[in-house]
Order: sequence, then structure tokens, then C-alpha cells
Amino acid sequence: MIDCGEGTQVQMRNMRIKFSRLNHIFISHLHGDHCFGLPGLLSTLGMLGRTGDLVIHAPKEIENYMRPVLDTFCKGMPYEVRFNHIDTRSHSLIMEDRSLSVYSIPLKHRIPTCGFLFAEKPKEAHIIREMTDFYQVPVKWMKDIKQGKDYITPEGEVIPNARLTRPSAPAKRYAYCSDTAYSPSIIPIIEGVDLLYHEATFMESDKARAKETFHSTARQAAEIARQANVKRLVIGHYSARYEELSELHKEAQEVFPGTILGNEGMVLPI
Amino acid sequence: MIDCGEGTQVQMRNMRIKFSRLNHIFISHLHGDHCFGLPGLLSTLGMLGRTGDLVIHAPKEIENYMRPVLDTFCKGMPYEVRFNHIDTRSHSLIMEDRSLSVYSIPLKHRIPTCGFLFAEKPKEAHIIREMTDFYQVPVKWMKDIKQGKDYITPEGEVIPNARLTRPSAPAKRYAYCSDTAYSPSIIPIIEGVDLLYHEATFMESDKARAKETFHSTARQAAEIARQANVKRLVIGHYSARYEELSELHKEAQEVFPGTILGNEGMVLPI
Repeated sequence: MIDCGEGTQVQMRNMRIKFSRLNHIFISHLHGDHCFGLPGLLSTLGMLGRTGDLVIHAPKEIENYMRPVLDTFCKGMPYEVRFNHIDTRSHSLIMEDRSLSVYSIPLKHRIPTCGFLFAEKPKEAHIIREMTDFYQVPVKWMKDIKQGKDYITPEGEVIPNARLTRPSAPAKRYAYCSDTAYSPSIIPIIEGVDLLYHEATFMESDKARAKETFHSTARQAAEIARQANVKRLVIGHYSARYEELSELHKEAQEVFPGTILGNEGMVLPI
Repeated sequence: MIDCGEGTQVQMRNMRIKFSRLNHIFISHLHGDHCFGLPGLLSTLGMLGRTGDLVIHAPKEIENYMRPVLDTFCKGMPYEVRFNHIDTRSHSLIMEDRSLSVYSIPLKHRIPTCGFLFAEKPKEAHIIREMTDFYQVPVKWMKDIKQGKDYITPEGEVIPNARLTRPSAPAKRYAYCSDTAYSPSIIPIIEGVDLLYHEATFMESDKARAKETFHSTARQAAEIARQANVKRLVIGHYSARYEELSELHKEAQEVFPGTILGNEGMVLPI
């Protein structure tokens, strides 16, 4: 889960997302609309009888907020909450497991804030069974071949890996950038991602207000997407002042035609 | 406002209740479903530019929870939050203004908990203009007569107050009792109130569970209402295990026919 505003647990129920599948929560910054749902969600997980650890990755100030909540409301819960402090000023590895690496993306906001880059690990290549049979490749070689090694026959002949395998599906990457002022320094980090979420709080007509509050305009979000050559852009975090979101959408599409107007409950396969 | 669960501010918006009318919040106890909406609500009040003090009446543990929230999220807010600590074990006056007195009602729950009794102050009697004209009552006497005094004419004749005034509408009282185990000791406090809200978490068939968790059954809530001779009873705080709330309603109505099945968004004039 990335960020957890008030009412997140209600939204999860409405969308029928299983609470038990949640193991890591990434909090971009300590503003209420990004973390006021944590106390309720954590309490509910306790009442549901969760036992496995839950890890909250967040700026270190999270503990000033959440330690008293845990002490006051969560005594005797059947599971443990662990905090992993993020340095929001550096682009670095936050967590990894067998299939995924998560990196921080330094952002420009009023308080320490970072985005998150989710990068699938490269998958093993697919063995072409007909070819390994043809060369009579022993089973003990298969693991190395999946990972890209050439095969050397007992006679010393080198069979290039490319002849024995088909490449796996390319590893996917998703970048989440909210909240932030226009910040081109993130471009090298998010270069070419399959999906970029970038905040678009304001329209260009309110550019001064965007700068003042360290937010972006729809046009700026699209500009980042264009320069970073991402595959798709989804925008969100709109100011309540705009009744007609299609205007923000249009503004972004003028710069980055593939812009998606993000909204509550939207599901985007990557 | 009495209690403030997660999502209260969203509910207020949906019901078009003005945030600016809110000056006092009464928190019955420090369980999440009764106070996890405070951080979001207080932040929103700040963003709306509120300047007047807001008073939170609550058990003293509220400060362990809310002080860190205010320190972390509410620096520089344009208004002040004041805490009034309630002694949940005593029935005592918590606050009063010109028209209203609020008293605590000690309840039986797993942690310090109290209910609240809202009592309108008696209103001044209505002057019967024809009678005061007839007796030529001077203007300076009117205030005393409204408050019940007899009029004494310059000749020393006593005109009984009842001849000069009509009684005002009787002062109304509302009692809120959640969460609590069956507790007949509250009966003298809530005797004859115009409306009683009493929790009814369980049905009689789950009476053991009710006792264990310090909650009431629908029948027990109705029993309290009947013995206290209240005018109307509204029940609520139902366990999620009951899909058909009409069963709880029926159970309460068997003991107290005027039971109202409380639910989200319900408005009850008193």
C-alpha cells in the first residue's frame, strides 16, 4: 500500500481487497491526507487476528505520530508493526524481496517527502526444451542457463545462451510521485517506467499557487512524463477547487497524450 | 459532537453539517471507533481558517494520543484546541453555557468510559401581556416575573406569578450511553429523559459475549429505557455479525415498544 489517508480501510472493504495480503505500507510524507488512515487500518488488522509482521516504510517522524497511537490503542495486538525509516533526500533501495525492489525518489515538498519506484526483478529466461534436448544439456546446467550462461558441451563446444532460451517478459516498473513541486531531477530515476503516477494538484492558471504550496500543475506532471519518456502517466491529487476535472486532463494531454485521469477506485494493470 | 470515528468529516460533508457550528466535542472513551476521526477533522477545521477555540471533553488519556498529532500535523493552525479532562467515574457537570448543561454518566466498559447527559436549562416563563397591562406592572419588574416572582402592587397587593405568566416549553434532556455493559446504576441519572441513545451491540443469544466484552444486548438496552421511564430509546453500535438488524429491533421493542433502530445519517428532533 502506498500512503493511507483517512477512510482507507473503508475503501478497501468497498473494493473487496483482502486485508491479509497487506505486508508493507509506504508513506511518502507526514501530511494527514497521506497517513490518517493508519490507526484505523492497524486496529482492524489486529481485530482480524493478523499474526505476521507489518512493515511501515516512512520518514522517521512517523514514530512521533504512530508510537503513541500503538501504545494507546494497540496494546496486546497479535502482530507486530515495524518501522523502516526512509531518508527522503536520497534515491536508495528501501526494501526488496525475491521479485521486487523498491527505491525512494526524492521529491520537493513543504516537509520531507519521497516518491517510490517499484521495480520488478528481471525474470529468468525460458528454456527452449527442443534445443536443450538436441544438445543433451544435463539437468544440473539448467539453472545457470536460465540465468544467461552459455552451455559448454563435454567436447568443449560453446552453445550460445540465445540459442537455448527465449527472453522472459521484460521487468515492469511503476513510479509514484506525490506530493511534489515540479522537479526535473527525478527524470533520470523514473526514465522509461511502464506507469508513472504524478500529482497534478493545480492547473497552469494557478501555477503561482502550485509553486507556493510545493505542488505541480497538470501541465508540469505531463512535462515530467514526456521528458522521462514514460509509457503511461496517471495524474491525481486534484485541488477541490476544480469541479470539472476534464480541464486538468486536457491540459496534461496536450503535453503527454497518453495521460490517464486518475480517480477513486481506478484499477490499472501494469 | 459526541464521539468522532474515522471518516466523521466525510460524513459531515455528506450531511451538509456546517463545520463552523462545531465548538465542543465530547469523547466517551479512547477506543479507535470513537476518536480516530479527530486528527482529520481538526486539520480540516484549520484549513477552513477557523479561529475560535475548540474544546475536546474527554478522559485524560486523550492527550497521550492527540498531543503528538497536534505537534506533528497542526503546527501553525489558526485556532486553539483545548482539552477538558473528564472523570469518567463520577456523575458531574462537564460544561455549561447559557442554555445547556452537560453531565458525565459513568459507564461500565473495558477502559474508562462515560456517557453524556445534555440538559437544556429551564427557560423563562412567557409574560401574559394582557395581565401585566391590567395590573400596570412597571417594565423593571418584568425580568423578575419571567423568572417566577410574584408582583407586589404599590398598594401592597400580591399578584401570584401564575396569573401573570404562561410556563415555557419544558426543558429537554438527551442521554448518550455508549459503550457499556448492562449497568442499572445509570437509571437515576437518565430518569425520564426525552431521548436515550443506548448501545445494543449484541442480541440476547450472544449475552455471554456481551458480558465478556462489556457491551449490552438489545434487550438490556430496552430494559434500561423501561426502568428509567425514558420517553424514547434509540439503539445503535451493532456488531457486524448481524446482517438483519430488524431482529435486534424486535428484541428491544418487546421490552420497550418505542425503540428506534438508529442508523447512519438518522436525524431525530428532540
